[in-house]
Amino acid sequence: MDHAPVPESAPTVVADMARRARAAGRMLGHSPTEQRNAALRHAATALRAARAELLAANARDVAAFAGAASFRDRLTLDDARIEAMAKGLEDVAQLPDPVGRVLSEWSRPNGLKIRCVATPVGVIGMIYESRPNVGADAAALCIKSGNAVILRGGSDSLNSARVIHAAMQAGLRAAGLPVDAVQIPPDADRRHVADMLAASGLIDLLIPRGGKSLVERVCREARVPVLSHAEGLCHTYIHAAADPEMARRIVLNAKMRRTGICGATETLLIDSAIAPMLLPGLVEDLATKGCTFRADARARAIVPDLPPATEQDFATEWLDAVMSVAVVDGIDDALAHIVRYGSSHTEAIITEDAAVATRFLNETDSAVVMWNASTQFCDGGEFGFGAEIGIATGRFHARGPVGLEQLTTFRYEVIGTGQVRP
Amino acid sequence: MDHAPVPESAPTVVADMARRARAAGRMLGHSPTEQRNAALRHAATALRAARAELLAANARDVAAFAGAASFRDRLTLDDARIEAMAKGLEDVAQLPDPVGRVLSEWSRPNGLKIRCVATPVGVIGMIYESRPNVGADAAALCIKSGNAVILRGGSDSLNSARVIHAAMQAGLRAAGLPVDAVQIPPDADRRHVADMLAASGLIDLLIPRGGKSLVERVCREARVPVLSHAEGLCHTYIHAAADPEMARRIVLNAKMRRTGICGATETLLIDSAIAPMLLPGLVEDLATKGCTFRADARARAIVPDLPPATEQDFATEWLDAVMSVAVVDGIDDALAHIVRYGSSHTEAIITEDAAVATRFLNETDSAVVMWNASTQFCDGGEFGFGAEIGIATGRFHARGPVGLEQLTTFRYEVIGTGQVRP
Repeated sequence: MDHAPVPESAPTVVADMARRARAAGRMLGHSPTEQRNAALRHAATALRAARAELLAANARDVAAFAGAASFRDRLTLDDARIEAMAKGLEDVAQLPDPVGRVLSEWSRPNGLKIRCVATPVGVIGMIYESRPNVGADAAALCIKSGNAVILRGGSDSLNSARVIHAAMQAGLRAAGLPVDAVQIPPDADRRHVADMLAASGLIDLLIPRGGKSLVERVCREARVPVLSHAEGLCHTYIHAAADPEMARRIVLNAKMRRTGICGATETLLIDSAIAPMLLPGLVEDLATKGCTFRADARARAIVPDLPPATEQDFATEWLDAVMSVAVVDGIDDALAHIVRYGSSHTEAIITEDAAVATRFLNETDSAVVMWNASTQFCDGGEFGFGAEIGIATGRFHARGPVGLEQLTTFRYEVIGTGQVRP
Repeated sequence: MDHAPVPESAPTVVADMARRARAAGRMLGHSPTEQRNAALRHAATALRAARAELLAANARDVAAFAGAASFRDRLTLDDARIEAMAKGLEDVAQLPDPVGRVLSEWSRPNGLKIRCVATPVGVIGMIYESRPNVGADAAALCIKSGNAVILRGGSDSLNSARVIHAAMQAGLRAAGLPVDAVQIPPDADRRHVADMLAASGLIDLLIPRGGKSLVERVCREARVPVLSHAEGLCHTYIHAAADPEMARRIVLNAKMRRTGICGATETLLIDSAIAPMLLPGLVEDLATKGCTFRADARARAIVPDLPPATEQDFATEWLDAVMSVAVVDGIDDALAHIVRYGSSHTEAIITEDAAVATRFLNETDSAVVMWNASTQFCDGGEFGFGAEIGIATGRFHARGPVGLEQLTTFRYEVIGTGQVRP
């Protein structure tokens, strides 16, 4: 993907950071796997050694925090969370190196050998809110994948971020890698975010992690490619030929296992042929677990107690124990609903009919489509990626979970023996 | 990659076209391979049948054209060019279907099967200048890859474009596919270009083809992902351990085979250790073919007749029989020059030293890097892609030649047997 040319010497703090990141990233990208792994292990050691300092810094952040209790909890670190961060760094060190993988190779009749090789992206800008651990997780994935990263966390967590950042740089230093590979802005000036969004040619990729308004702002204003999901309005569609017991089990999990994650099902679509038999029991299962409902008229004709849904309800990512319910007439109706209201994140069909499932898989235009499985499986760990930095719902590069491999791009290497083009 | 959310019902001609393209693209994307191939063959037949009409329309375009002679030549169609267009459609019909390829697949310990499957991008916007055949070529690649396309050619070629467009739609119609899969704006209003650039959520990908100013404008203003190259400032680096005869043969081809293509070498970098022996003969070879030079002081110390190069010369894509020449001290110096002046398109090293070549391949941050081969091989046909719609120098999705496979993206399909997430 192309973006605007490099602005000549934009005199901002971010531009200066990005230039140093570019130079550091080049060295990181060409460094041996073991050196990057050593940096991660050293960073884990440094983080554990800084435990008391980090708890004190975090206590200052929490004391100054004036927001909602749920955000305060995300902001708060304790021994267990710090150990989990350190362990996360060590876990990433154990993962396979995504850089240098030969993605494909072939030979031409003239003897040229062509291979497509995974390379680091370059300079990544991470813009996130509240949770201080996101900085450590992102730095780990970027170091491992040979990318330099600029971490712009929420201003609420600046004291915590500084201690975590120092540990990451200590790890890089101990491994003989340039500390500029992981940087944070020197202060909480909001202008740094605007400068990161405008840093075309300086930052190669932005990854926002946070609330919908943050992500939407980044997507709207960025002059740099963005990997993100603004929302996960996931659907589970129970086809007429579903196994009823499987449908109940999957829907219960897809909605209620964790309601606040982006892969949670927000809307249940159920075929009119099976709804009278299945919907009452499903509603009872879910209601027992604390779920409430917004249902269309046809669903309410079957379970009259369900509250009515508005048009807007079907466009709402609840992230809560609330489910929108609509009765549909077969797969075309279900696909039309998903096209209209979906966010291209994850959709699932439950059916024993392989032909219908194949149509659903082929014709659903989302990053992840599932057959007879819970939408909550949309996760880097569950995909086997080892770790994830987020989920992407755009149409290019990474779609779905973003792990180490998704933090690489590629180049073609053409190897000849003196060939010239006729 | 994410971009801004869909503007609600922007009341433009382009928005209306894009919505119809979206619906048509869905049908195209799910259609059998043979149906898309039939559309291409029918379109070829329709194009040949419209030969007289197309020549007459083109004659009106050419008569009204007031630009330079070289652009007039690009605009002008004759029997051979029309036949080449028709043959091109049939050739694309012969290529393998890029849609539905399984790019990777694996199983998880819980029995989930995950596969990554190639899918069409969706709606592509092609913005191009002068050459009417670009419309036919682009339409063929888009139809084959299951994408709808909006073709916005130069206003100079509107009469020609209309006849070509009618042939493409006749092909779609004859194959039972929706004609809205290939559309052109109803008139030459320049506002349509601005509307295409702003069509975030309506158009998924823009591909500009034309001069540097067009491409740069698209990259600068687009709110939609762009695949393009603004320029190809390609370098060939003759390392000290080069085979001199091979170096002369390759450089002559890389510079002079065709000077106007983006893969032509613009700058020669030559090691100080080999330059005194090699540069005089190389200059003689090239000068004999009509090449002129812009050389740095060290090159002029060896071949005093060479005209001096300015700093700006090394940043210039000549697209002509002109070559910038610099003497460098080894690979680090060469890489630094390429980082400073390169356009991330194609660079080549000529050397018999495999370790140095490996460093060059690893550390050159361009879409295509070559060892002992002519940079003019950066071409979809030469890569074996069968056809190309352009070259991309961005960092994501497609880099280098853009063929059928590069006009697809992917989704994950997750196939379960009732799994729920613990």
